[in-house]
Amino acid sequence: MTTLMEKTAMQDDAATLATVETPCLILDADRMDRNIARLRAHLSPMGVTLRPHLKTGKSIEVAHRLMETPEGPATVSTLKEAEQFAAAGVRDLIYAVGIAPDKLPRVLALRTRGVDIAVVLDTVEQAEAVAAASREAGTAIPALIEIDCDGHRSGVLPDDSAALLAIGRALVEGGELRGVMTHAGGSYAARTPEELRRYAEVERKSVVDAATTLRDAGLPCPVVSVGSTPTAHFATDLTGVTEVRAGVFVFFDLVMHGIGVCAVDDIALSVLGTVIGFQKEKGWILIDAGWMAISRDRGTAKQPVDQGYGIVCTLDGVPYPDLILADANQEHGIITVRPGTDEQLPPLKIGDRVRVLPNHACSTAAQHPAYHVVHGDDPAVTATWSRFGGW
Amino acid sequence: MTTLMEKTAMQDDAATLATVETPCLILDADRMDRNIARLRAHLSPMGVTLRPHLKTGKSIEVAHRLMETPEGPATVSTLKEAEQFAAAGVRDLIYAVGIAPDKLPRVLALRTRGVDIAVVLDTVEQAEAVAAASREAGTAIPALIEIDCDGHRSGVLPDDSAALLAIGRALVEGGELRGVMTHAGGSYAARTPEELRRYAEVERKSVVDAATTLRDAGLPCPVVSVGSTPTAHFATDLTGVTEVRAGVFVFFDLVMHGIGVCAVDDIALSVLGTVIGFQKEKGWILIDAGWMAISRDRGTAKQPVDQGYGIVCTLDGVPYPDLILADANQEHGIITVRPGTDEQLPPLKIGDRVRVLPNHACSTAAQHPAYHVVHGDDPAVTATWSRFGGW
Repeated sequence: MTTLMEKTAMQDDAATLATVETPCLILDADRMDRNIARLRAHLSPMGVTLRPHLKTGKSIEVAHRLMETPEGPATVSTLKEAEQFAAAGVRDLIYAVGIAPDKLPRVLALRTRGVDIAVVLDTVEQAEAVAAASREAGTAIPALIEIDCDGHRSGVLPDDSAALLAIGRALVEGGELRGVMTHAGGSYAARTPEELRRYAEVERKSVVDAATTLRDAGLPCPVVSVGSTPTAHFATDLTGVTEVRAGVFVFFDLVMHGIGVCAVDDIALSVLGTVIGFQKEKGWILIDAGWMAISRDRGTAKQPVDQGYGIVCTLDGVPYPDLILADANQEHGIITVRPGTDEQLPPLKIGDRVRVLPNHACSTAAQHPAYHVVHGDDPAVTATWSRFGGW
Repeated sequence: MTTLMEKTAMQDDAATLATVETPCLILDADRMDRNIARLRAHLSPMGVTLRPHLKTGKSIEVAHRLMETPEGPATVSTLKEAEQFAAAGVRDLIYAVGIAPDKLPRVLALRTRGVDIAVVLDTVEQAEAVAAASREAGTAIPALIEIDCDGHRSGVLPDDSAALLAIGRALVEGGELRGVMTHAGGSYAARTPEELRRYAEVERKSVVDAATTLRDAGLPCPVVSVGSTPTAHFATDLTGVTEVRAGVFVFFDLVMHGIGVCAVDDIALSVLGTVIGFQKEKGWILIDAGWMAISRDRGTAKQPVDQGYGIVCTLDGVPYPDLILADANQEHGIITVRPGTDEQLPPLKIGDRVRVLPNHACSTAAQHPAYHVVHGDDPAVTATWSRFGGW
């Protein structure tokens, strides 16, 4: 964790990409702002609320740029995030991971502090636990029923009316049925705009159908929530949907590029590293950014273009031709020319610096205590924004 | 980061595996102590010093159990580790990643505070930078020349006398040639005791040969350092070697088990998770420990037995038959029966807890702010030990 003293010292020193300690995490705030504006502009005409997922940034400063207001709405993946963002003033949250009954005391503590946090569930057992905890506390905990729109993870099938109604009825015995939600994680397998639009429509229809089932049975369903970065960007009709959740779009990454959701130069996050050695016969350049700095995420391994551990760029953020971080040890990264190409290694020397664009922004960011903020091709580090981890 | 208040509260509450918040990191201190004693007993008759690598634990409490004395010796992978352990009293360190010239001011600051920290390098450029910084500071920075014993990463080839002597001669123009070091990372590809013994001998011979080259040319070489967990456990003759570095053995993991260096029940580290859902038709149990808790490390993917994201155990730490964490999203883990077996899923219910043994202790531990310490099959959490990250 960067201490306040370190942070202040860094700002006093007029830090730049050439002087900050490596490895470290660089955030191009101009690209981030552009990514946020792009999704807002896409969703706004469809009349839905953007409820950004704060799990990618885990940073108050990033959250403030993502949210429509300082109070939210927003989505979180851990109760630690909920507590941290609540302490910073956020008042409207969905904790979007199936609730474990043991976690309900922390949810209730947040609600007592004035935070409208809703939980997510997909079993009668969880609904009964939420209803019982609500009755005991004398306050209804709101919950959304998770819908499985594409078979990739959790949720009730949208046409399983029996399960939907059983969960809804168990919940309203003390708890609050806030609505339905789904996440089209399957859209990560899409490769064309047509497929992405199809996933978006399947995602939309799944929750709208489930909401209809609940309402037809006399149960409430005010919130109809969808969300994944690919579908959020390719949806063209969100009739019946009230809100869209998306997270990784704030920074984007090579996995999103591989799906076709962003360009390489939309990627706002990179890891800054320093050259520490060579194996010239093998065509290797070694840097001080290994998997501890870039993460073990190999999300592009199954995509048509495998980017290794990331694309290597100049200090200005421009990719070197066909240069990737091909392998990584804990604190060593191995840069090579992409296999099958005839590019030459750039003439980097000991002490030179490069930036590596990550496969997966969520996992790379999670390896770091802070963002070093830059703007476009200006090398000045204008701020450091701390981020948190843990649960 | 667990705050002191949280830590105190936890201890006051008589925390157990059934009550701590999930997901979290569990350390069985009995297994850890057994692992440490085993390696010490193996190395002691060979007359070498154990210089444990502290990069796996990144914890003062773990370091104190690993080191022969509170002052060291020890090995680190980042200057942040060096600074943290120095603040806790460690005085004898090797920073075992090729030095970037930009990092020398932090090395000098540690030396000024009385910490005998040595750096590692494998180019004339780095040796010249170390010598120049030493002359400027008026104090010789010690450096070890890294030897490439098996082609897996960095280092000078052991028979490249010209490079060795050029680096050594550049270094002694102000700096201190402390010796030679290597890391048999290639040993991770070994699968039999014979192969492991062969890697250990290749590792030993590489540094002993390099030391001879330096000494024959009139250059000093007091330290001859080898190190990897597999070779440390299988070396039978360390003639000419002065010290052994090893790190992951403190906790062990499924990668080390796959190589044949430890048994499954030597693995001291696990991630505690809670059941949050099911997809019964697919044979899935969902838990609240995803890749954020277990890491994205798939180190067993290339081994004969692919353990997915880890082996699933009871709360007591006993593996369920053929049950693995087959897939992981950020905060969701998907448990299934190992493909190709006919085991049934255990009758776990919402809220039940399991422990997951990790592929790679270094990367899993790095996802967590603290260890929850247990002893054998006693469910009591007797302490929480904080750990740090960053550079």
